[in-house]
Amino acid sequence: MKEYLSSRQRLVDETLDALLPRESTKPKTIHRAMRYSIFAGGKRLRPILCLAAAECCGGELPAALPLACAVECVHTYSLIHDDLPCMDDDDFRRGRPTSHKVFGEGIAVLAGDALLTFAFEVATQVPGWPRYSLRDVVRELAVACGSRHLIAGQVVDLESEGKKVSLPLLKFIHESKTAALLCSSIRLGAMSANATGGQLQRLSDFGRALGLAFQVIDDILDVTQTSEKLGKSAGKDVTAEKATFPAVVGLDRSRKVARRLTEEARESLRPLGKKAETLRALADHLLQRDY
Amino acid sequence: MKEYLSSRQRLVDETLDALLPRESTKPKTIHRAMRYSIFAGGKRLRPILCLAAAECCGGELPAALPLACAVECVHTYSLIHDDLPCMDDDDFRRGRPTSHKVFGEGIAVLAGDALLTFAFEVATQVPGWPRYSLRDVVRELAVACGSRHLIAGQVVDLESEGKKVSLPLLKFIHESKTAALLCSSIRLGAMSANATGGQLQRLSDFGRALGLAFQVIDDILDVTQTSEKLGKSAGKDVTAEKATFPAVVGLDRSRKVARRLTEEARESLRPLGKKAETLRALADHLLQRDY
Repeated sequence: MKEYLSSRQRLVDETLDALLPRESTKPKTIHRAMRYSIFAGGKRLRPILCLAAAECCGGELPAALPLACAVECVHTYSLIHDDLPCMDDDDFRRGRPTSHKVFGEGIAVLAGDALLTFAFEVATQVPGWPRYSLRDVVRELAVACGSRHLIAGQVVDLESEGKKVSLPLLKFIHESKTAALLCSSIRLGAMSANATGGQLQRLSDFGRALGLAFQVIDDILDVTQTSEKLGKSAGKDVTAEKATFPAVVGLDRSRKVARRLTEEARESLRPLGKKAETLRALADHLLQRDY
Repeated sequence: MKEYLSSRQRLVDETLDALLPRESTKPKTIHRAMRYSIFAGGKRLRPILCLAAAECCGGELPAALPLACAVECVHTYSLIHDDLPCMDDDDFRRGRPTSHKVFGEGIAVLAGDALLTFAFEVATQVPGWPRYSLRDVVRELAVACGSRHLIAGQVVDLESEGKKVSLPLLKFIHESKTAALLCSSIRLGAMSANATGGQLQRLSDFGRALGLAFQVIDDILDVTQTSEKLGKSAGKDVTAEKATFPAVVGLDRSRKVARRLTEEARESLRPLGKKAETLRALADHLLQRDY
């Protein structure tokens, strides 16, 4: 698994490096800032899931790679904007100073904007398939990162700071902020492989459960682990009075929820049989963390 | 002309109203913020040019309207982010408080993000044509508002504040910040009408000259007009030590440049004959301001 992950990470890194404008492209500042955040040691979780979903449906990597890179650009843009002083006000990310600490707030906003825009440019590089058109692909990406999903999660998260949050609202935040893009990464991979309707349905169920489980576990680890191990400020959610599972339902019940969602994710893959082996292993790797 | 403009403005407003998520869509804050800035009394210049370019190439309005709305969403997003305290720090826009003054900085950043994302969602609603695919359309939009054009202009503008700027650099800022999206609005309209290669070339030349002329005239008016007449803080460029044509080459030469570009724009339309009458009238209306 470790070898698989690092070889996939390398593939995604190389493709992103080939696709993104060079640092020497004018204006240099913005391209330096885009690359600074894209190459900040991210685990490439979303692209790797995208590629694995494509393979699970019998697709080829070259057809899925532009979409894998597009979701990573969207993910990185959302991190840059989330870290801004007017949002979560975070100085460190993956152990390095955040974009606005290095380039200033103005350039950080623009670097996020540029990566979001670039995601759509890159997405146009996918070939067309009988079942899914570029229209389906662009819509999938735009809806997942739009005002009803990715951005919706950030809005409600922002509005909930310091307030008592209900469990349904917390689920809404996590489903929007984390699960939506994660699920779309998987769906886009499947679409690039010309997946059948049935395959796409199973993989969507898988992605939703996986995404939510992943975020619940992140919430738990923020409480139970050290900053060093996390590569970001631990206990940050508590300090910021963020809506998290441990804060709303307690640690024990959070662990139960995480386990139940993990089971749900595995169940969704069952009908896909042996083809889903890599995705199953990925889910285990992501969810069997020490929580 | 006045009647034509207000009927087109109404058509664009109605279409945007029908396309954008309702204010009651959850989370309400973000959809209120998106609509607050979209319906802030903009002149709909870019959408109107998009529609006129489509008609000039024999196209129908329904095919061009999604693209007209997409460029307006991109334009509005860029204004919201430009007005942020970490950018131009403007409290008023079109005579109303700017987004971050009403909703706070965090929501203003997200409202811009949401409108940029929504532009791509809306763009997928165009039908396909023999000469241009959705691929061409999405790429045109993404490149025009990406890190080499719209965002590039804002970056260099930001970096040039308080510095002496050369004429070529000033041209780069204006071409990127203003002319690129304006030119793309026209090109997208033409593409929606299945324009020939020749038509698209002429209209691109027209758009570039028109866009640059428009910005030079804006620079001049910022110096010579009152805030009331402009609907935004006059003399703002001077106070912020912005790179403008009057600051770099003086008022007289700026007026000459504006007149020369206006002539260039009209020249580019000549080979299109009578079909370009509306575009010609629009150019006259936009460029024959009292500068």
